[in-house]
Amino acid sequence: MRRERVRDLLARVADGTLAVDGALDELAQEPTESLGFATIDHHRALRQGFPEVIYGAGKTPEQIVAIAERIAARGDGVLVTRLSDEAAAAVQRALPLAEYNATARTVYLSSPVAPAPTRASLLIVTAGTSDLPVAEEAAVTAGALGCRLERLTDVGVAGIHRLLARREMLDAAGAIIVVAGMDGALASVVGGLARVPVIAVPTSVGYGASFGGVAPLLTMLNSCAAGVTVVNIDNGFGAAVAAARILHA
Amino acid sequence: MRRERVRDLLARVADGTLAVDGALDELAQEPTESLGFATIDHHRALRQGFPEVIYGAGKTPEQIVAIAERIAARGDGVLVTRLSDEAAAAVQRALPLAEYNATARTVYLSSPVAPAPTRASLLIVTAGTSDLPVAEEAAVTAGALGCRLERLTDVGVAGIHRLLARREMLDAAGAIIVVAGMDGALASVVGGLARVPVIAVPTSVGYGASFGGVAPLLTMLNSCAAGVTVVNIDNGFGAAVAAARILHA
Amino acid sequence: MRRERVRDLLARVADGTLAVDGALDELAQEPTESLGFATIDHHRALRQGFPEVIYGAGKTPEQIVAIAERIAARGDGVLVTRLSDEAAAAVQRALPLAEYNATARTVYLSSPVAPAPTRASLLIVTAGTSDLPVAEEAAVTAGALGCRLERLTDVGVAGIHRLLARREMLDAAGAIIVVAGMDGALASVVGGLARVPVIAVPTSVGYGASFGGVAPLLTMLNSCAAGVTVVNIDNGFGAAVAAARILHA
Amino acid sequence: MRRERVRDLLARVADGTLAVDGALDELAQEPTESLGFATIDHHRALRQGFPEVIYGAGKTPEQIVAIAERIAARGDGVLVTRLSDEAAAAVQRALPLAEYNATARTVYLSSPVAPAPTRASLLIVTAGTSDLPVAEEAAVTAGALGCRLERLTDVGVAGIHRLLARREMLDAAGAIIVVAGMDGALASVVGGLARVPVIAVPTSVGYGASFGGVAPLLTMLNSCAAGVTVVNIDNGFGAAVAAARILHA
Amino acid sequence: MRRERVRDLLARVADGTLAVDGALDELAQEPTESLGFATIDHHRALRQGFPEVIYGAGKTPEQIVAIAERIAARGDGVLVTRLSDEAAAAVQRALPLAEYNATARTVYLSSPVAPAPTRASLLIVTAGTSDLPVAEEAAVTAGALGCRLERLTDVGVAGIHRLLARREMLDAAGAIIVVAGMDGALASVVGGLARVPVIAVPTSVGYGASFGGVAPLLTMLNSCAAGVTVVNIDNGFGAAVAAARILHA
Amino acid sequence: MRRERVRDLLARVADGTLAVDGALDELAQEPTESLGFATIDHHRALRQGFPEVIYGAGKTPEQIVAIAERIAARGDGVLVTRLSDEAAAAVQRALPLAEYNATARTVYLSSPVAPAPTRASLLIVTAGTSDLPVAEEAAVTAGALGCRLERLTDVGVAGIHRLLARREMLDAAGAIIVVAGMDGALASVVGGLARVPVIAVPTSVGYGASFGGVAPLLTMLNSCAAGVTVVNIDNGFGAAVAAARILHA
Amino acid sequence: MRRERVRDLLARVADGTLAVDGALDELAQEPTESLGFATIDHHRALRQGFPEVIYGAGKTPEQIVAIAERIAARGDGVLVTRLSDEAAAAVQRALPLAEYNATARTVYLSSPVAPAPTRASLLIVTAGTSDLPVAEEAAVTAGALGCRLERLTDVGVAGIHRLLARREMLDAAGAIIVVAGMDGALASVVGGLARVPVIAVPTSVGYGASFGGVAPLLTMLNSCAAGVTVVNIDNGFGAAVAAARILHA
Amino acid sequence: MRRERVRDLLARVADGTLAVDGALDELAQEPTESLGFATIDHHRALRQGFPEVIYGAGKTPEQIVAIAERIAARGDGVLVTRLSDEAAAAVQRALPLAEYNATARTVYLSSPVAPAPTRASLLIVTAGTSDLPVAEEAAVTAGALGCRLERLTDVGVAGIHRLLARREMLDAAGAIIVVAGMDGALASVVGGLARVPVIAVPTSVGYGASFGGVAPLLTMLNSCAAGVTVVNIDNGFGAAVAAARILHA
Repeated sequence: MRRERVRDLLARVADGTLAVDGALDELAQEPTESLGFATIDHHRALRQGFPEVIYGAGKTPEQIVAIAERIAARGDGVLVTRLSDEAAAAVQRALPLAEYNATARTVYLSSPVAPAPTRASLLIVTAGTSDLPVAEEAAVTAGALGCRLERLTDVGVAGIHRLLARREMLDAAGAIIVVAGMDGALASVVGGLARVPVIAVPTSVGYGASFGGVAPLLTMLNSCAAGVTVVNIDNGFGAAVAAARILHA
Repeated sequence: MRRERVRDLLARVADGTLAVDGALDELAQEPTESLGFATIDHHRALRQGFPEVIYGAGKTPEQIVAIAERIAARGDGVLVTRLSDEAAAAVQRALPLAEYNATARTVYLSSPVAPAPTRASLLIVTAGTSDLPVAEEAAVTAGALGCRLERLTDVGVAGIHRLLARREMLDAAGAIIVVAGMDGALASVVGGLARVPVIAVPTSVGYGASFGGVAPLLTMLNSCAAGVTVVNIDNGFGAAVAAARILHA
Repeated sequence: MRRERVRDLLARVADGTLAVDGALDELAQEPTESLGFATIDHHRALRQGFPEVIYGAGKTPEQIVAIAERIAARGDGVLVTRLSDEAAAAVQRALPLAEYNATARTVYLSSPVAPAPTRASLLIVTAGTSDLPVAEEAAVTAGALGCRLERLTDVGVAGIHRLLARREMLDAAGAIIVVAGMDGALASVVGGLARVPVIAVPTSVGYGASFGGVAPLLTMLNSCAAGVTVVNIDNGFGAAVAAARILHA
Repeated sequence: MRRERVRDLLARVADGTLAVDGALDELAQEPTESLGFATIDHHRALRQGFPEVIYGAGKTPEQIVAIAERIAARGDGVLVTRLSDEAAAAVQRALPLAEYNATARTVYLSSPVAPAPTRASLLIVTAGTSDLPVAEEAAVTAGALGCRLERLTDVGVAGIHRLLARREMLDAAGAIIVVAGMDGALASVVGGLARVPVIAVPTSVGYGASFGGVAPLLTMLNSCAAGVTVVNIDNGFGAAVAAARILHA
Repeated sequence: MRRERVRDLLARVADGTLAVDGALDELAQEPTESLGFATIDHHRALRQGFPEVIYGAGKTPEQIVAIAERIAARGDGVLVTRLSDEAAAAVQRALPLAEYNATARTVYLSSPVAPAPTRASLLIVTAGTSDLPVAEEAAVTAGALGCRLERLTDVGVAGIHRLLARREMLDAAGAIIVVAGMDGALASVVGGLARVPVIAVPTSVGYGASFGGVAPLLTMLNSCAAGVTVVNIDNGFGAAVAAARILHA
Repeated sequence: MRRERVRDLLARVADGTLAVDGALDELAQEPTESLGFATIDHHRALRQGFPEVIYGAGKTPEQIVAIAERIAARGDGVLVTRLSDEAAAAVQRALPLAEYNATARTVYLSSPVAPAPTRASLLIVTAGTSDLPVAEEAAVTAGALGCRLERLTDVGVAGIHRLLARREMLDAAGAIIVVAGMDGALASVVGGLARVPVIAVPTSVGYGASFGGVAPLLTMLNSCAAGVTVVNIDNGFGAAVAAARILHA
Repeated sequence: MRRERVRDLLARVADGTLAVDGALDELAQEPTESLGFATIDHHRALRQGFPEVIYGAGKTPEQIVAIAERIAARGDGVLVTRLSDEAAAAVQRALPLAEYNATARTVYLSSPVAPAPTRASLLIVTAGTSDLPVAEEAAVTAGALGCRLERLTDVGVAGIHRLLARREMLDAAGAIIVVAGMDGALASVVGGLARVPVIAVPTSVGYGASFGGVAPLLTMLNSCAAGVTVVNIDNGFGAAVAAARILHA
Repeated sequence: MRRERVRDLLARVADGTLAVDGALDELAQEPTESLGFATIDHHRALRQGFPEVIYGAGKTPEQIVAIAERIAARGDGVLVTRLSDEAAAAVQRALPLAEYNATARTVYLSSPVAPAPTRASLLIVTAGTSDLPVAEEAAVTAGALGCRLERLTDVGVAGIHRLLARREMLDAAGAIIVVAGMDGALASVVGGLARVPVIAVPTSVGYGASFGGVAPLLTMLNSCAAGVTVVNIDNGFGAAVAAARILHA
């Protein structure tokens, strides 16, 4: 149950539009719910402002649908990431209002009680076209968490004037996510130009000695520009959650 | 030949229900048996209390069936792990009484002479739903070895109250297996709460810098909670054997 | 030249306490200054709110002193990290007002024009006593950047009640830095409990399969708690800069 | 405060030799105690049967002494591992009754209320002479935790008859710790011969492609003998704690 | 052109059954032959006693067939390893007398002039059934090079009595190849028992922390039994060539 | 827009065959062009002498075609590397004059304004037949950049006389690219024989401990022959660009 | 014997200032010279334009001096790299005219017959002050090989305007060496801006996840700017040799 | 007790120069001898033709001396490798007739009953002067085992004519050890030229991406020349034992 929803309940009790017993019933729901193969953390929305997001990899379509239905039944928004085609179809059948994003491989059902939009915007900067699926996972997640979004795409350092030409976008953002594979050098350059928090997402784009994203991961961890923090390879989702925490602060 | 079976033979000789010659014939079987492509260690059941378990990966269905039939012919139980669909079907055709577990990818034929059940129970704790196949391999194996079983599923540290709420289960167990991928942090938390031996199983659940399970493996090897021991990535089987040795002690 | 200093200059011009020509002279200083062995980025303070911090490792005491003197001469604060004993002594001789922190291995000379203190405070959580040098590097840096500070020390997950007993500190912070070696599991637990941005710093505390901090680094990158971002091993400095960017936003 | 000590207190109250108030005072001590640089987990002895063991590496002698004195003041036993010569001397000055083991690099002060000795004994098997420091750390720790001990030294597989000649020792033990560097093959051989739990400790003994103990660590994790569990490289301490949990079960 | 063939030519010239000009024509063939995509080293048979063996992986069936035909045309034996099903069929169509070994994934066409059989025999010892494809590649290669062969299969150290029971085979061999995956410990045990050269072949049999054969590779490189040498993972071919050089010496 | 094209424009203005306004229109094109999913760097041809080359991996056929069409529309040559069959077909449909090279997996559309051919030639040396796809990617790229080409194929060090016999080719070249997998030793041998710049390309040809090309990569980075530089594994493209820069200097 | 020296000899024969026999004597010197512990390759100067450079690490001062004296006796220049203080002193005693460079850790004795200076100059770009020892090794080596030199120091991407402000230096160079540790991102930025060959030298400057220079090495190998080639970590020497080959072409 | 010694005893019994009881006393000595910290394998000399060699690293001087004295007391030869200066001095005091080799870091006491010299000789080929300590360890060991020795020093592939000029040495040897660091390419070249078994020893000579010898180790494991086998990094000892097994066959 999201914090917004609880606040709304309390407000309705305060102004008399909801009886105390009705509010009690809603609040009395168990914080965790066991499905045998899963223990859903319904309390997470209240604790951290967003419900448990379902990581689709390694779960069967049946498991994903069952968890998604239980979260939706609480009136919370539902976000599923890393979906196979088969699982995405199953979730869409179960939750017809949910939106499928084929690039990001996500399904998202918005909550009736949306989070307040952030004041400042999140800028997602991408080094190359091949990095777009990861950037899109970040965009869907950040959108679900109420972030306003800007994008700057395919501005890798092989042609650095593409970035310098749009420097005002770096100055305008409240937080920046940099998505880059191969050499990952874009994160350091952005980190040296920006004043705001920069979250770097290495991607598995590349070959040979990129070792599935290890090369840009190490580049970003060793960034000579201070103030850059890093998440796991291809983890657009995690970067967006961190950015949302920053922008909602 | 399992120890239980030998003990049973001797008891029947002692009470006159089995002639000495009959017992001799059974005991005179060769401790190893060569199939050309395999040298079956029939002595293992006597030496260690359970027969040789067949590791299915890298063997042809024909090889698996041949080995399984020879073990079954001795009256021992048969356990095959890491089976392909094709091999599982072949074993079930050969041993129609054997049970197939699709999640664990195991086939198990119980022995007429079951091992004595353990006094204390084994608790299998799982961090997430995606870790279930490994946990199930552990459960099938431990069951075959006579362990009483309890389960605590999907209680990873991202929502640690799910674990704390069931702390009495940690206190009641005789040994604990913790199955976790990604950060593997659950093993340390359980290790810090429990008094009994904790066996940690890293899983290949995760992506990017989890490196196929290396990340949780290292987490568990470096556990700041003493008393945690570790087995190979995804090795639910090995963890269960170790736990059975502990509980049968 | 720090932004605060420029703002101060402009204010003094506005209220007539500084002549336009005097302000011009100050502002006309070169943004970079070459020492032969170094190209000082004086512009960084204006661009990012803090002057270039001197990374002491791999520089001779003479080089460090020369750079520090040039920055100090601009009226900016000076922070040097990763100092050898010999270099620390040399800097203190050159800048007698600077403070030496033996645990953090830093020398810090505050600026006459201090940055505004942050509204929310930064909480630095440490898993063990051996992690203190890294935590202290973060504390010194964050202090130099105007962050208000809280500390929670030696609360690793081997005894998780030590953390749970102080949970209100997690709720009160504006941002959290978690410093942990060995299994690095503390970051995930804090990430699962907190609402605010969590920056994880793996340390080289440990032995064997900690591989100089690789184990906690991987743990943190694979954190099952979303919203955790990571910096380089032992990089207390970088974590503090990132936290300061968050708290000053 | 150890469980034995609490049990003793309660017994003395029961038989009237200790006044209720006196018992209350003892029991009322805080479960954790903060020294600024450390948060001592006095509750651990009660929770897990042994007090917090002090990991000496990365702590100053002053820090170690201060923690050791606080634990000793509770009447608990004190064990410090991985001590430098300087720290060992400092602890011995502070706790003159403590025993220093130069091979193991430990200092140990026994508790007036010793843990009950284990029924079965722990066998510590060592592959080579160079592995002795790690084996000795295990022996000191296991002794402090009440384990009865047997040793089998320098019986690596290059001369496997040395092990086979003493096979009865494997059969007699309640649990076995195998300490081996280089190829680490001894753990698999012992695991194949023994019926009881086998805990393998890889050591950093070796050179070149042993990679500081990685080679035997991998050997042990991949042991073809089921029932072998593994701890961190050179972690004699952790192996002993795990073994003590098994033998005290 | 094999040494045996050259010796045969010269003998026939000596006894008058071959005219000098005929011998000259044969010997005058170019030592290398260029096919555009390949430069065949016909001289290798003369230099090292066996013709160039064709490594099938990464070559198209057309390329393999073309090279094989050119070698066969010289009257040399042809051995192709690491063949896909498609390439194996193509080679068999081109060289109908060649033998296909499905386990080893080799095609072999014997030479009319066979190498002299070795006096001592080569013993190929295998740890498990899953290691058979690598062992068979070694066996086919060694056979092509004239080695007499013995086999000892599925005698891994989890049941070490299987090996000890056949110790006379170790004593009888002139050289030993040990093929093992997982922990690779069999090589050290054999190396400690045998007097003759032992060549260890790590295999990719295993999972998780076997890292595709790195674990047994490291075990074997760090063998505490001196006199063990190692070849690449799954390199049955290379081990057989080395063994043949030893036995032909 | 390639430098040659700009030079041509200016020449045509100079001799009156192009009106100033027409030249202006062409030159006034934007240096970058945004397609939403890509920001094309049209300026690169002018800056570095060749247009942006399209890296096909990780892009959809639609994205590749769109980018290729925009570059072709400027009159520049188009080179696409690492194409899937599907993408290659799509590009060929869109640009019917482009040439597809199935071995190199490239599509190339030459520019009406070709770069001047280099004076000296580039020699591409290959260790084995399996290395040809990488060598061919280098050849196509170098050809597109105006390099004259020579080839020396399948001359690995297992039969070093194949290389020594063609040593005059090393002496005649202006720059050399060495393409080798497995042990990668050919680069050092060539580096020791040649006087001109040698660029080494490790390939992923091999198995086991070649680790996807890491083995030859390390061999080449550690070449005992000075003057050898290295590019990423399988990076025939990058080696060719570097060679073209050298030969055009 | 350097090519210049041979050319000089021949010229003196041609103009009669040197008798044929005298020239013969000089030319008749053995191409290799054995010192027992070393086989000096005197032929290298003739083959590749510079004499064998002595790699000082791992050699005793006595060995270094003996080799240096033999090379000097031929009239060739002498360059020794990676010298200990002790070895440097010994070489200077033996060759009093040699110059010691403490930053580069080299000793250099110029040859009476200097190589012709290169027409274009080599630009050595350094990311930070700590990278200077590697850059200086490159500078000394390149100078010995006749390269004209320019330097651009401490222009890492954390303050990218420092590089952009000096872009004309990139345009003026004939070849560029980029020396960078930590994230190594400078190589990609320079590679994207320059037209000429760029040789990247990763340095071991950094800590934690820089892994002794692996991080910048991977960054550079994965450079998204084509045309960048890479040498071993800290290999200023090798980069300079490669650059000299380019500039002398 | 060496085989030669037992044969000698039996011969003396046969010809009456030794009484049966005297022979019995000698033969009745225990095959293993326990020193508490070591279990000496006296049987090894009989089993494998040479006594247990003492690996000095990680043992105290006292331990080394005690083991050496026990082996010497049996009349066997004594070889100690990897000695510290302190341990070497202690052994020499205890066994004054033993020879110390400072380069190899070995102490060797020959046995009165020397092994028969090998018929063919062992050729030790070294890539560079810095590889000599490893080569010398091999030479001392091989000499102790009765091998006739030849040496070819500093013939790395950077100047391959140094090797080709001495090719007759490759043809004359019965087995070859190749010792090389850095790129390790020499092993492949020798393996391609020789007919006899080639044992490759990678050394830790090098820096940066040689990773302490990993680079040449991988080169050698991936040798494109078949018939090359490999031992651990810097393991001159192990290579010599393997070579002696080959030459004594």
